[in-house]
Amino acid sequence: MTHRPATLSAIRTLLANLAKADDAAMHGAVARNGQLTKPPGALGRLEDVAIWLAGWQGTDTPRIQAPQIAIFAGNHGVVAQGVSAFPPEVTVQMVANFTHGGAAINQLAKTFGASMTVKAIDLDRPTGDFTQTDAMSEADLLVAMLVGWDAVDPKADLLVPGEMGIGNTTSAAAISCALFGGVAEDWVGRGTGVDDAGLARKAKAVRDGVARLTSRDPLAVLAAVGGREIAAMAGAMLRARTLRIPVILDGFIACSAAAILHASAPSALDHCVAGHVSAEAAHTRLLGALNKQPLLSLGLRLGEGSGAALAIGIVKAAAACHSGMATFAEAGVAAG
Amino acid sequence: MTHRPATLSAIRTLLANLAKADDAAMHGAVARNGQLTKPPGALGRLEDVAIWLAGWQGTDTPRIQAPQIAIFAGNHGVVAQGVSAFPPEVTVQMVANFTHGGAAINQLAKTFGASMTVKAIDLDRPTGDFTQTDAMSEADLLVAMLVGWDAVDPKADLLVPGEMGIGNTTSAAAISCALFGGVAEDWVGRGTGVDDAGLARKAKAVRDGVARLTSRDPLAVLAAVGGREIAAMAGAMLRARTLRIPVILDGFIACSAAAILHASAPSALDHCVAGHVSAEAAHTRLLGALNKQPLLSLGLRLGEGSGAALAIGIVKAAAACHSGMATFAEAGVAAG
Repeated sequence: MTHRPATLSAIRTLLANLAKADDAAMHGAVARNGQLTKPPGALGRLEDVAIWLAGWQGTDTPRIQAPQIAIFAGNHGVVAQGVSAFPPEVTVQMVANFTHGGAAINQLAKTFGASMTVKAIDLDRPTGDFTQTDAMSEADLLVAMLVGWDAVDPKADLLVPGEMGIGNTTSAAAISCALFGGVAEDWVGRGTGVDDAGLARKAKAVRDGVARLTSRDPLAVLAAVGGREIAAMAGAMLRARTLRIPVILDGFIACSAAAILHASAPSALDHCVAGHVSAEAAHTRLLGALNKQPLLSLGLRLGEGSGAALAIGIVKAAAACHSGMATFAEAGVAAG
Repeated sequence: MTHRPATLSAIRTLLANLAKADDAAMHGAVARNGQLTKPPGALGRLEDVAIWLAGWQGTDTPRIQAPQIAIFAGNHGVVAQGVSAFPPEVTVQMVANFTHGGAAINQLAKTFGASMTVKAIDLDRPTGDFTQTDAMSEADLLVAMLVGWDAVDPKADLLVPGEMGIGNTTSAAAISCALFGGVAEDWVGRGTGVDDAGLARKAKAVRDGVARLTSRDPLAVLAAVGGREIAAMAGAMLRARTLRIPVILDGFIACSAAAILHASAPSALDHCVAGHVSAEAAHTRLLGALNKQPLLSLGLRLGEGSGAALAIGIVKAAAACHSGMATFAEAGVAAG
């Protein structure tokens, strides 16, 4: 069992010593897959997903019985720059909506049998406006990452980290631009629906935020232009890795959290699959930078973990087919 | 209630007098969608699916609580032309596998809470080799279509027609080529995994089958080059239409059954959504001819209704979000 990291330095140490997939279980799953009553490869991507699950669950017959959706909410000082179509009060209102069961993610959790954890992080204390100052101190960053760390249920067998935070596509764009380069316009999109003027303000905010950076160290970038919910998602993804819990990545903002881990260690997202590609244009670019192929492409752009939650059904189905199907020998079917 | 058609002529009459979606329910669903606690359009394709479901279920709050998977199996005389990688005995062996719960579709049915109906149609009496003779007489065609008609549970609120039949991608290719033109090579693929020589034999069989046709009337094409399981799927889709049960289309073979209805009446597939696009190359072309956008693209090429069954989760999620979410007013969330 990995100890809870008490410092950013301990987090860096964890990132340099990542848990690995169980090769023997994966080899066993590959062998089993070849014996199942179907033509070779006929389940397409489901076969890859099942073998990947086998590696992280450490068994050649993986199952998804306890998926967890963990949602984190934070507020963003950068909304002062006019970057969102919604007022910042919506963050706390939507957290109440999650708690009362009225949001999209609640319906998706019920549909796919997932538990749901909601952590609102200091909503009355927005991050600093990153065009003017660092979003978070190192101490704030650590606290937020540990909210994510602590939120992961060690008994979960699949994790969907999700988020809510008015203004957070701007933060995600700044993180992406800082880590992967390009110009601000490459990484900003309409988010919840800003107009052309709002889009121009987002690009300027990203440009200004990135120009202020004194380091491209991933955790320094996260403190400078990130958000508490993004830090918490990164913490949850890292905790899941120590517990060998597979993770489904949601949209642009969740992937910006994943990008912090990826930029810290190339293999840090091996336990993650991309649940979907969203309608936020930069998500396609970011998935490319993370070298992840999305399972779904249905034009969602909601956040809340919704696209990843939708993919729980696909991942469950992959495990169920792989682990529940009969082999040719068991079923007395000619193998072709 | 529509009477069970006793003749092919009665089926033609049904195709000329199709049930229509409930416009008022769709308008109600559009209005509700605009009030839900999310930015406009943020659930992407899920929103379209929910509104489509509303039209067929006749309510502005559709639900999926009783999905049915109906699988039909048939054997094909055209296997004598060496068109499949598997021997025809596999059809009956796989039906036994369905019955015993060992196939992929059984695991998918369990994962998504669907009931499953399996109808093996005269497996000991393959269709005629359509390169030499008609696959079915008109009487055989009617019987097979009515197997499909009768298999639909009137209490189902979503239907997935699926199939098993060694050789049936060749039949599906011949139907598609007859109805939509092009050359045989446009419509044949590797199916369960034929080699290059097998692929050439498939193309020749399709060419020979289409050359024998004396009519392009869709039901005549179905009798001449179709299969019993394909006819049954067409019958099930038509029955679902009379009952206003929405349908998820599976892969190339299920879509060749859908194509018979489409070619008979342009609106005959309005109650159908394409569950996925398969790895069988001609499926992309066929979906284009049917003017259907697939929900999923995961490289499946198994049949059994598997791709459509996987999409049950997406359709369920669409209904659950639409009908279960709070409105802005209910949740006290600012509408932006």
